[in-house]
Amino acid sequence: MAKAEKAAPVGNMVIGQSGGPTVVINQSLVGAVLGARKHKKIIKNVYGARHGVQGILNQDLINLNDIPRAELLRVGLTPSSALGSVRKKVTPEECRRMFDILRAHDVHYFFYIGGNDSAETANIVREVAEAENYDLSVFHIPKTIDNDLLGTDHCPGYGSAARFVALAFMGDDLDNRALKGIKINIVMGRHAGFLTAAAALGRSRPDSGPHLVYVPELPFDEQQFVADVKKVYQKYGRCMIAASEGIADKDGVAIATKFVQEVDSHGNKQLSGTGALGDYLAQLVKEGFAPEKIRVRADTFGYLQRSFCGCYSETDSREAYQVGEMAVEAAVSGVKSGTISIIRAKGPGYKVSYKLSPLASVAKNTTQLPRRFLNKDGNNISKAFIEYAMPLVGPLPEVGYLEGARVKPKKIG
Amino acid sequence: MAKAEKAAPVGNMVIGQSGGPTVVINQSLVGAVLGARKHKKIIKNVYGARHGVQGILNQDLINLNDIPRAELLRVGLTPSSALGSVRKKVTPEECRRMFDILRAHDVHYFFYIGGNDSAETANIVREVAEAENYDLSVFHIPKTIDNDLLGTDHCPGYGSAARFVALAFMGDDLDNRALKGIKINIVMGRHAGFLTAAAALGRSRPDSGPHLVYVPELPFDEQQFVADVKKVYQKYGRCMIAASEGIADKDGVAIATKFVQEVDSHGNKQLSGTGALGDYLAQLVKEGFAPEKIRVRADTFGYLQRSFCGCYSETDSREAYQVGEMAVEAAVSGVKSGTISIIRAKGPGYKVSYKLSPLASVAKNTTQLPRRFLNKDGNNISKAFIEYAMPLVGPLPEVGYLEGARVKPKKIG
Repeated sequence: MAKAEKAAPVGNMVIGQSGGPTVVINQSLVGAVLGARKHKKIIKNVYGARHGVQGILNQDLINLNDIPRAELLRVGLTPSSALGSVRKKVTPEECRRMFDILRAHDVHYFFYIGGNDSAETANIVREVAEAENYDLSVFHIPKTIDNDLLGTDHCPGYGSAARFVALAFMGDDLDNRALKGIKINIVMGRHAGFLTAAAALGRSRPDSGPHLVYVPELPFDEQQFVADVKKVYQKYGRCMIAASEGIADKDGVAIATKFVQEVDSHGNKQLSGTGALGDYLAQLVKEGFAPEKIRVRADTFGYLQRSFCGCYSETDSREAYQVGEMAVEAAVSGVKSGTISIIRAKGPGYKVSYKLSPLASVAKNTTQLPRRFLNKDGNNISKAFIEYAMPLVGPLPEVGYLEGARVKPKKIG
Repeated sequence: MAKAEKAAPVGNMVIGQSGGPTVVINQSLVGAVLGARKHKKIIKNVYGARHGVQGILNQDLINLNDIPRAELLRVGLTPSSALGSVRKKVTPEECRRMFDILRAHDVHYFFYIGGNDSAETANIVREVAEAENYDLSVFHIPKTIDNDLLGTDHCPGYGSAARFVALAFMGDDLDNRALKGIKINIVMGRHAGFLTAAAALGRSRPDSGPHLVYVPELPFDEQQFVADVKKVYQKYGRCMIAASEGIADKDGVAIATKFVQEVDSHGNKQLSGTGALGDYLAQLVKEGFAPEKIRVRADTFGYLQRSFCGCYSETDSREAYQVGEMAVEAAVSGVKSGTISIIRAKGPGYKVSYKLSPLASVAKNTTQLPRRFLNKDGNNISKAFIEYAMPLVGPLPEVGYLEGARVKPKKIG
């Protein structure tokens, strides 16, 4: 880990969760809380802020000291943000108000679990604390199902959401084999296609779906899309499509923003929680095949991807715990701020280590699906993506197919 | 089981799958195939018809004799219909064509796995076979996620789909606690609310969602719906809603048919595979709260409910196998036709037995969620439903909540 700048302050700690929940975000919380218990001489009390920075501003803090370890471990295995979440960018004014409150509670450690917007919030908190000379160690603990944080091999939360998407496509592909047609599934992902790409991880046969994968990284051309679908349909008599909610035209305008207008305080437009994009793509396909009538259906996986109970990747769950623990270890060693990045070791087998990165390196900006994770035509994934993602998702169930020999047809009068 | 009418014919058997797939429909197939292997002196060859009756008409039959037991067991654990499915009502003319083909292949056993439409098809096959004096034993093996077949305590396929819905709501309720708002989830169910009711099985706290449950059995009043949502929202600052895709107005017109028009050969209108109903209900709520702006989201669970890989009820999986096996046992005992009903024993613990019922008793007509499974207001489930459904769904994961004492607020200057 990084070197300490000076001795760690002695005081209390506050921790919050922010942004969209994941299935393993509570593991990071529990990792941090149990991590802090190992350093009781430095971190006296651990306070949980309800709904992130909003909970600090409202003094809506709960004492996490006395919660039994067994109960915390159960919380770790529970989806969504047990402290409540928030989508809120803080102003310098709000930061100063928070420091008045934190000072009154003798808090000198601030941990914030979230994505790049939450890292940005943490970084603002750090900057204002420095300017105000308030002694606060500020750490971001990464989570996002989008897998789009900078400087890390992958993000806690992604593996479990990717597992859900892979399992959903495995089952839906079998469903689509049974009752053939064209099936479009919309997967979460505003700017990054990692989660949509995971749709292909469970393919077990050359004709397994999804047959087409569209991500926000490449311009979505409606005519090319219909042409792609027709080509697959001609070959297999069916077609399974995975499309990101954030697919955008050549000018970068998300197709879904044609239908929805809500915007949050970070400037993000609402893309999830509506079936409109799927229905729009289904309509395009129907029109493309007209006058031929084809069975076309669209599902939007929605919030199930980030919350479904009992479906998580063990690797992801373990790593989520560890990044929480690591952030606390860095803080008690005297480091003043940072975020935890995951480094994957080269060579055979899957192995990771963790390192501390500057908050500013993660805040605001995001990364995208590398071009080499897509095929040449940009409408499917590459082998490189499967090698990257499979260890994060964990082993998928085996699928059985009926392989009996065809009974020789008889001549009927 | 029922008494034999005469000695069972010696010959071959054909089996097909029909209607919407389920996660355990292959268990019924495997139960029948392995069941037939115990009676090789009566049932010589087992042929699988690809895509149900269509596979017979096309002589698209596969020989299931030589498939190793281990491979069949894997197929049993694989979602969807491994033989392929079809939505097709046969005409007497098509039946006669089928008998020409079945006669050529020396087939005297016909097994059809499906819901009430498939039972109707089986019953037509039986009637025409009798009229034509073709010696054919005809059995229906029940499956449906809708749980709406007559004369049975419950239907294979329901428990697993109900488990998916319960797990989805458990996670989504936690998500909705973290980021509060109004969340509408549309659950499959054209005329029966059993699956939608399962949304409530994972509730672990008095304030757990879904807070409102709407099923097709009672008229859906849009104004009352908005009033219900407002009441819950006032109490909890959030509201989770489960609504069947088939909710209908007081004249019995499904709300979703306002948006979609496709009809299959059994006269069923398309309700699934579109997000339109959820978006419509979300719009109603938004308008109801205006000018106040509320976070309202809608998800439509879609085909994942009947196909998600790796999520099934063990009870359901076992029973699905057994109804397949039972149908074959009845057939080889010399009974000429029927379907298998599940009888639940009274008294403590969950225990079932199976009985043979006439095909005609299951064909065409369906049952609905009994009124006693709903609350007085008709917008939620009753305790009686939970007692009925929990054994079918199996134990659900435990959920952890953070229960720290609130940190006493300090006076800030």
